[in-house]
Amino acid sequence: MTENGVLSRDKVLTIDTMNPTVKNVEYAVRGPIVQRAMQVEKELREGVKKPFTEVIKANIGDAHAMGQKPITFFRQVLALCSYPELLNENMFPEDAKNRARRILQACGGSSVGAYSASQGIDCVRQDVARYIERRDGGVPCDPDNVYLTTGASDGIVTMLKLLVCGEGASRTGVMISIPQYPLYSAALAELGAVQVNYYLNEEKCWSMDLSELERSLAEARKHCNPKALCIINPGNPTGQVQSRQCIEDVIRFAAKERLFLMADEVYQDNVYAEGCQFHSFKKVLFELGPEYSDNVELASFHSTSKCYMGECGFRGGYMEVINMDPEVQAQLSKLVSVRLCPPVPGQVLMDLVVNSPQPGEPSYTTFMKERTATLSLLAEKAKLTEQILNTVPGITCNPVQGAMYSFPNISLPEKSIKEAKALGQAPDMFYCMKLLEETGICLVPGSGFGQKDGTYHFRMTILPPTDKLKILLAKVKEFHQKFTQQYS
Amino acid sequence: MTENGVLSRDKVLTIDTMNPTVKNVEYAVRGPIVQRAMQVEKELREGVKKPFTEVIKANIGDAHAMGQKPITFFRQVLALCSYPELLNENMFPEDAKNRARRILQACGGSSVGAYSASQGIDCVRQDVARYIERRDGGVPCDPDNVYLTTGASDGIVTMLKLLVCGEGASRTGVMISIPQYPLYSAALAELGAVQVNYYLNEEKCWSMDLSELERSLAEARKHCNPKALCIINPGNPTGQVQSRQCIEDVIRFAAKERLFLMADEVYQDNVYAEGCQFHSFKKVLFELGPEYSDNVELASFHSTSKCYMGECGFRGGYMEVINMDPEVQAQLSKLVSVRLCPPVPGQVLMDLVVNSPQPGEPSYTTFMKERTATLSLLAEKAKLTEQILNTVPGITCNPVQGAMYSFPNISLPEKSIKEAKALGQAPDMFYCMKLLEETGICLVPGSGFGQKDGTYHFRMTILPPTDKLKILLAKVKEFHQKFTQQYS
Ligand SMILES: Cc1ncc(COP(=O)(O)O)c(C=O)c1O
Ligand SMILES: Cc1ncc(COP(=O)(O)O)c(C=O)c1O
Repeated sequence: MTENGVLSRDKVLTIDTMNPTVKNVEYAVRGPIVQRAMQVEKELREGVKKPFTEVIKANIGDAHAMGQKPITFFRQVLALCSYPELLNENMFPEDAKNRARRILQACGGSSVGAYSASQGIDCVRQDVARYIERRDGGVPCDPDNVYLTTGASDGIVTMLKLLVCGEGASRTGVMISIPQYPLYSAALAELGAVQVNYYLNEEKCWSMDLSELERSLAEARKHCNPKALCIINPGNPTGQVQSRQCIEDVIRFAAKERLFLMADEVYQDNVYAEGCQFHSFKKVLFELGPEYSDNVELASFHSTSKCYMGECGFRGGYMEVINMDPEVQAQLSKLVSVRLCPPVPGQVLMDLVVNSPQPGEPSYTTFMKERTATLSLLAEKAKLTEQILNTVPGITCNPVQGAMYSFPNISLPEKSIKEAKALGQAPDMFYCMKLLEETGICLVPGSGFGQKDGTYHFRMTILPPTDKLKILLAKVKEFHQKFTQQYS
Repeated sequence: MTENGVLSRDKVLTIDTMNPTVKNVEYAVRGPIVQRAMQVEKELREGVKKPFTEVIKANIGDAHAMGQKPITFFRQVLALCSYPELLNENMFPEDAKNRARRILQACGGSSVGAYSASQGIDCVRQDVARYIERRDGGVPCDPDNVYLTTGASDGIVTMLKLLVCGEGASRTGVMISIPQYPLYSAALAELGAVQVNYYLNEEKCWSMDLSELERSLAEARKHCNPKALCIINPGNPTGQVQSRQCIEDVIRFAAKERLFLMADEVYQDNVYAEGCQFHSFKKVLFELGPEYSDNVELASFHSTSKCYMGECGFRGGYMEVINMDPEVQAQLSKLVSVRLCPPVPGQVLMDLVVNSPQPGEPSYTTFMKERTATLSLLAEKAKLTEQILNTVPGITCNPVQGAMYSFPNISLPEKSIKEAKALGQAPDMFYCMKLLEETGICLVPGSGFGQKDGTYHFRMTILPPTDKLKILLAKVKEFHQKFTQQYS
């Protein structure tokens, strides 16, 4: 008690009184290893001696941070929209100016500083719809089913929020791939849903297996109410591109088992391997005919953060919903209105992605050159990563068919596993921490994404510039050999 | 059953199977009246005859949409950051270029397209901390306690998410003012928390009343676990500016009753009335001495959307947490990492707001001129609104001391109340709908914000350009008189 009668008291909000579902949230991509990497960088700057001179980060799919350059046309339009006085200058191509004028006209008060409609700017949603139609060979898309989002993350969490409810044995279950992108497990933990794991088949290049889906669902039905099935294609962290057949199987499965499909297609342009092609869930759904296309409920997600643009900081994205119950869709529209609107610069960027320069327009050639160069370089680095990793005894790496990651299997010596467990660490976390301390390379352990019990992996992005990527791979190789020796 | 064995089936996700907490969400600012206004606009464009030629929207605090111009300096820096090639041009002042260079240097790969740290760009958080220190007369601010957000909305919802838990009588209660900004009720509904109402005192210009806080809390303690107290100052929808004394009372109350304080201070520059001044909760907290400043937990929120900048579309904002339990704060940092980062252009804008041009810098004069002009115009319109509304018999309007809204009390004839109720409508919704259909003016009924039973209000923004605002006020006056006659 102080003299004023105010207690020197405990906090209102403590680890014991706070929302327990938040405590269950984990997000490895920005977890302990990344925090340690930032410390190490700081120590290096402060002159602490290390067996390396720089930290190389391959922990996050953040292309610009790794030196990828933005698409000139996109940034020109963004500058014009931000400061429309530039429309009077001669330095910008006419097509960039036209795009900017069109977008500004669709903004309240002709300003990107006005709130947009909560679902997104009308003309942007129309452009998204036309893009989807072109991409899917003419399958119709209604702009009213398109919602612009704050990155794909926002769309995914919003959809899950609509789906999840119930308690005990009727709690909503959501099927997610293992390995998965940890946004899914984090969102499900926060919402108090049951995470229902289905394993991707590492032996078959991380493809989806009908029998595994069936096993997983049957298991889940014993203790929860599975309502949705999430797919990431091309895959993060696993870098696979699912075949058309596989997607067809999944859709038939979802139809038969009455599951809402969520297709995370943020890497739709990131396909590198020969013979691989991106098939959108929506397109395949419509190809299966009206008994599917009129019934199966699907939400699909796209983003400005990945593909050839890599514009993560703008937090642009969209979601398309198909066959959603109109009453539910009204609830969705209401729900998104509470947050007012997605960031307008991100909406502008999304518009440019779906409505890029066309043949004959002044910016077309440069745009195509930049786009192709970025995607070719990624394809090269995908190949390089797979090849070098597979030369390391004890590392097995599936082809990086798409996305921006490889997720190699690493054999860890028994002794290292024991030592990790004694420290209360996942064995691949122990491995990645040691890798960081000894080489300055920052990767994320497989345990952050989920993996079959008894298997170990790490995820590395293919994004570092080629010279750095080569150093990184050489260091990983050397480290793995040393580590294996040390613990054998 | 179709031939393929697939049932033409009900949806997986229906209004009955969806998350029931989402159904409880309401958000009047973008509710039915606004949707109808958009239809009416469409009808006008299509040539439908109406007793008016345009819809005047005073439903939402969206300054640019109402014709307010952005601050030139802010937009120059944004353009430079979006398209750094502009740094080589002579058309931008040196201080704009310097700001852009400094921000770009703090971005991954020198690109605003890279993800930032989840808590926000380091140098922006530092600038925010220095701004808070200046604003609060030197009270220290640790940048580690500053979190950049996706608009203030995001910060508010994130804080509520940390706070809310429990079931039945131990469910978390959160005290909010009535009338309130409906983000609060919507977020509480979604989180399944108990909304604990305390009424602002309309007779005393919407001030907070200690006895009312005590009544509300005592009442709430009978059926839930009240943990937090939210204050909006300057107020939305009520336009009041709380006195220093009042803030002091609230802090002492929170300390005594062990409540976590949430101070929504997004209108901190929007103070117009003579004798009124903005006092931040943090400053007053520290002035009360260490028994308060070392103990009371406080989160305060700011935004790029309001004040003189009105940059809503960028979704910039920050939150500062004070006396937060370090374990909880670690959970907060983890939680925000799941969404990766707030939009970087919004962070840039927030930085410019807290680090605006200084005396001696080339952009200072123009900046100050623009800022002052905007705020003076708002002050004028605040006065005008109050004055004209108070000339209408049956309308009583408190002074618009701050923010961007007036929330006048309207007397509605008994007959109109009966007719509304017969239609299942709130009486002031009935009134506002009629106003829209007859005059083209779009306001939000008081029932969307909450009000004392048996009282009726509408909220109107003071944002329309002066000429439009005058028309609007004249039309409201005429309508109110006609309406009163019609139903008497
Ligand atoms: C599979 C997948 N989905 C969604 C996201 C979220 O991306 P954003 O929110 O930046 O659009 C990511 C980011 O890495 C991802 O890999
Ligand atoms: C009191 C109050 N708080 C928060 C917000 C949210 O603003 P934003 O998310 O655009 O920063 C608003 C918007 O009108 C508001 O009036």
